[in-house]
Amino acid sequence: MMEIKKERGAVYCNEEAWKHLKSKLVSLHPSKLFILVNTHTARFCLPVFLELSEITSYEVLTIEAGEKYKNITSCVDLWHLLSEKGADRKSVLINLGGGVVTDLGGFVASTFKRGIEFINIPTSLLAMVDASVGGKNGVDLGTLKNQIGVIKEPLQVIVDTNFLKTLPKNEVVSGYAEMLKHGLIHSEDYWNDVQKFDIKNPASEENLIWKSILIKNEVVTEDPFEQNRRKTLNYGHTLGHAIESYCLASETKKTLLHGEAIAIGIILATFLSTELLNFPKQKCQHIANVILSHYPKVEFTETTINDCIELLKYDKKNQHGKVLFVLLNDIGKHEINCEVPNDLIYKAFSYYKNL
Amino acid sequence: MMEIKKERGAVYCNEEAWKHLKSKLVSLHPSKLFILVNTHTARFCLPVFLELSEITSYEVLTIEAGEKYKNITSCVDLWHLLSEKGADRKSVLINLGGGVVTDLGGFVASTFKRGIEFINIPTSLLAMVDASVGGKNGVDLGTLKNQIGVIKEPLQVIVDTNFLKTLPKNEVVSGYAEMLKHGLIHSEDYWNDVQKFDIKNPASEENLIWKSILIKNEVVTEDPFEQNRRKTLNYGHTLGHAIESYCLASETKKTLLHGEAIAIGIILATFLSTELLNFPKQKCQHIANVILSHYPKVEFTETTINDCIELLKYDKKNQHGKVLFVLLNDIGKHEINCEVPNDLIYKAFSYYKNL
Repeated sequence: MMEIKKERGAVYCNEEAWKHLKSKLVSLHPSKLFILVNTHTARFCLPVFLELSEITSYEVLTIEAGEKYKNITSCVDLWHLLSEKGADRKSVLINLGGGVVTDLGGFVASTFKRGIEFINIPTSLLAMVDASVGGKNGVDLGTLKNQIGVIKEPLQVIVDTNFLKTLPKNEVVSGYAEMLKHGLIHSEDYWNDVQKFDIKNPASEENLIWKSILIKNEVVTEDPFEQNRRKTLNYGHTLGHAIESYCLASETKKTLLHGEAIAIGIILATFLSTELLNFPKQKCQHIANVILSHYPKVEFTETTINDCIELLKYDKKNQHGKVLFVLLNDIGKHEINCEVPNDLIYKAFSYYKNL
Repeated sequence: MMEIKKERGAVYCNEEAWKHLKSKLVSLHPSKLFILVNTHTARFCLPVFLELSEITSYEVLTIEAGEKYKNITSCVDLWHLLSEKGADRKSVLINLGGGVVTDLGGFVASTFKRGIEFINIPTSLLAMVDASVGGKNGVDLGTLKNQIGVIKEPLQVIVDTNFLKTLPKNEVVSGYAEMLKHGLIHSEDYWNDVQKFDIKNPASEENLIWKSILIKNEVVTEDPFEQNRRKTLNYGHTLGHAIESYCLASETKKTLLHGEAIAIGIILATFLSTELLNFPKQKCQHIANVILSHYPKVEFTETTINDCIELLKYDKKNQHGKVLFVLLNDIGKHEINCEVPNDLIYKAFSYYKNL
């Protein structure tokens, strides 16, 4: 059975999933049902969703597709729309889309009239393996990623890997970065398994996807408010987020997908792990090779690197003014709250450059 | 002892209160301490606060005074300021001010990096007896009151009635409306006591203020998420909020203070209670007299009344498209989820007009 049962944040995958959604909607008896989509999922996922869910009475709210719309302005638009369309506290919001839709929709629902119920239907690989569990939601503040948000589990998460059939390949590869990360923080076994993931046919990989969801669920259940172990999910994200923010803000740099930035962050964090925690050098090289076989290599000038380091001060894991990394002693063996001197960060970028 | 001990939302009043704040700050050991004030509390309360709290290392964040700044734009400014000033998850925000400062500051803190700790120091009577307990926070959306927010208790609330010495009289009267409401929903005894409140010398009324805080605390502890009994705190607020919103939006109407609008709402709700629940007519008349001895009478044209009724559809207690009132069978005896036909609302306004 592919299901995680909880009062909030229950996750159901494939076969039985839609039955659970239907029965939940019957018991909720919402005053109005709203479906949040972006311009892509409106086209590719909404018709499938309506057929499978058998929902007939609903209002669709649409946002533009893309990370740059994951901001407070979009929230204000949606809050006004919900008000105008008569949403009340018994209304339910279904977020049908990738991480931007589920993160933003979760925040909009959690704050509208101090909180209405919401259900997430992740349609991208990234949203399935990452945004689907743990209840983190929110939006970017300027170019700073996820600075504003709350932690609140959706009532239910429905994972149907068939949605991945219409997902562009670069989006599949982006989500795959989080699965690689799950492998590295969890175990040598899952790291080996996850390398066999068929990027051309992700809809068939429900077992690996489910394993990733289980790993994330195990971590967030142990530490929902990110005091300790949950920080390991940020492996590769400290520099990854900074790189992503930098590219988002830059007028000349191409915007990177989240996973593309995280993939670089993983290589850098693994190099830092070899320098500071004796992570095996050979494994580091292998990890870098695996990643570079899937992800575009990005060029960083010294100015770019300086700017990325500057952005680290906004990282949400920082405490008392210190930038704190998650690093690894070995695959599956983490250490949180690691301080890293700046010269090692330059060295890590230079390692990446020479790969 | 004037204290309510809880892990979150502890409230301390007068004598021992500042000791509790000091020891909490020692145990929190914040990376940075921010104090949110408005232009009034910066002048009248901040110097007193700094002396009593003995805080020496802090940054002050200032917003303009007034309900019209209780919006998302102010939040965005504050989120940016916190980011720029290096706030991290171990930073603490102290909200020093009236309901706008504590409501807005509580929301900003609850959503910044998915939640940092905050402490409320209410300096107005309204904030002491109403905003101080229960964890409701948030901002207005356009003219719709408190449409956006979350429920999260501050870590601690420090009530020092000495702050009331510098509060303008109309602000005292505004806060007093919530105490009158507490009397009506709680008991004949407290209703009688609260009429003896010395509006000219509110700082001396710590016992009545504390009783109001205890009443509110009892209600919200029983029903934190407003499923049942907490709705009674909305007595007089259904039409009161609509009137307040209407005046806020109107270019010709004078903006009413929250309590001034709620006072009218209480008269209207009590009249509705006589019509629908046999609330004693004589008591209704007495309540109206008590209120009119303190609050300005407002003129409503038929268009104004229509507009207020129109605004009711945004009330947060509404369910399944129905406007639901809290009404009373008698003082201290409530009934929630009451439907009220529109013609009775017109009749209530006409009762108010002829008082």
